[in-house]
Amino acid sequence: MQLPDVGFLHSLADIADAETLPRYRSALVIENKPKEGWSFDPVTEADRQAEMAIRNAIQARYPDHAILGEEFGVSGTGPYRWVLDPVDGTRPFICGLPVWATLIGLTVHGRAEAGLMSQAFTGERFWAAGDGAWEERAGRRRRLATRDVGSLSQAILHTTSPQHGRDHATGFDRLAQAVRMTRYGGESYAVAMLAAGHIDLCFEPALQPYDIVALIPIIEQAGGVVTRLDGSRAEQGGAVLMSATPRLHEEALRLLNGAG
Amino acid sequence: MQLPDVGFLHSLADIADAETLPRYRSALVIENKPKEGWSFDPVTEADRQAEMAIRNAIQARYPDHAILGEEFGVSGTGPYRWVLDPVDGTRPFICGLPVWATLIGLTVHGRAEAGLMSQAFTGERFWAAGDGAWEERAGRRRRLATRDVGSLSQAILHTTSPQHGRDHATGFDRLAQAVRMTRYGGESYAVAMLAAGHIDLCFEPALQPYDIVALIPIIEQAGGVVTRLDGSRAEQGGAVLMSATPRLHEEALRLLNGAG
Repeated sequence: MQLPDVGFLHSLADIADAETLPRYRSALVIENKPKEGWSFDPVTEADRQAEMAIRNAIQARYPDHAILGEEFGVSGTGPYRWVLDPVDGTRPFICGLPVWATLIGLTVHGRAEAGLMSQAFTGERFWAAGDGAWEERAGRRRRLATRDVGSLSQAILHTTSPQHGRDHATGFDRLAQAVRMTRYGGESYAVAMLAAGHIDLCFEPALQPYDIVALIPIIEQAGGVVTRLDGSRAEQGGAVLMSATPRLHEEALRLLNGAG
Repeated sequence: MQLPDVGFLHSLADIADAETLPRYRSALVIENKPKEGWSFDPVTEADRQAEMAIRNAIQARYPDHAILGEEFGVSGTGPYRWVLDPVDGTRPFICGLPVWATLIGLTVHGRAEAGLMSQAFTGERFWAAGDGAWEERAGRRRRLATRDVGSLSQAILHTTSPQHGRDHATGFDRLAQAVRMTRYGGESYAVAMLAAGHIDLCFEPALQPYDIVALIPIIEQAGGVVTRLDGSRAEQGGAVLMSATPRLHEEALRLLNGAG
């Protein structure tokens, strides 16, 4: 297995940033695109233009790689598949809150092996591509590592929305009651903060592959754990739990699954 | 009435930023300080050091002005009173999410006349001191103005937490069902985005004076409306609604107050 070098990942993020940042907090053309569970799903020009630009750059460099993107679906086949969400967190994007991000992931034979998250407004990059997880801002690079607060009672839990649907509301309530603090609205930016050691648990009840693939290597190479609620790998999305330590993960899965 | 010049407001924010930013995403000493409605209220060194530094600067320049701060209470009396929250949003601060802010407000005879909000990590300032509301980042200054989306059905609503207590839960649910989108977790940063024309409504059920005084002039001078649920002025905090337009404000108050 040959992973692309980190420089190529950053060049893709540069290309995406050039499409997203100028459109952030500008007048936006917002369309409704109804999708499962969401009554309002804004799609911006930033989303489409950034994905198209990333796709073009990947196809030029790796014509035999497959690509799955939020906006334009699947192209190609084969063991290497790029998984793209040009603007993860379109809601905070249109609200002007800098917790949206561009997610660029790579699976090899279905397993997430490299990922990069770019927050263009704050100028932050978070990535992992085989040699640990890293963040960089303003030329300052730092290794990411999750923290260990010990037990659930000391943990900070993040989730995007309080609406978790019939399948997960009860389990989530159990988990929220067990932790020290529950916060809402962080999107993938909260996952980066989990990898950086500021948050202990992130739960998202309905992820798509492009919402999570880029984040899996970052979490895992920072020392964290990410699985679906049945403990299986999270590359296909669904209800996903991310934890700073294996112990927290095990305890939180138990509560989410109803055996608390 | 003589308002301090804007340069002095910014110098106070510079002083606060020097205390908050170096402690952001560093190891923090977190204490529990139980307070109404919150089971966990972290107080950081950033909070205390920033407030002390701002207080010293105000007392040196305006020894006859009163000061109310979140950390050190009231000092002094008289028509001019500074109202300070050195770290508004201590929860996002400790979680590493850049939606916390330093709030510096000034009331004259009880009415909020000037206010500044500083987000040190993104390098943003939002302020109003008699000649309109403004934002500045990286030397680029722009006038703030709320937008007009027309009706509630087109509005974006923000609130910090889904827990609104017995008094406001039903009213909030009515409002949330009437708007286009409801988002959580933005704290005062969401209010700045309301003033900047990206969000239409912010509701907070239990504000302290230091949570809101600095924001009132920014909202009002950007064209927005801010009152308590009975329509009275919001300087004393409580349950506060902030709106981009008078029409939205009136319609939202009606739903929050149960006459929907």
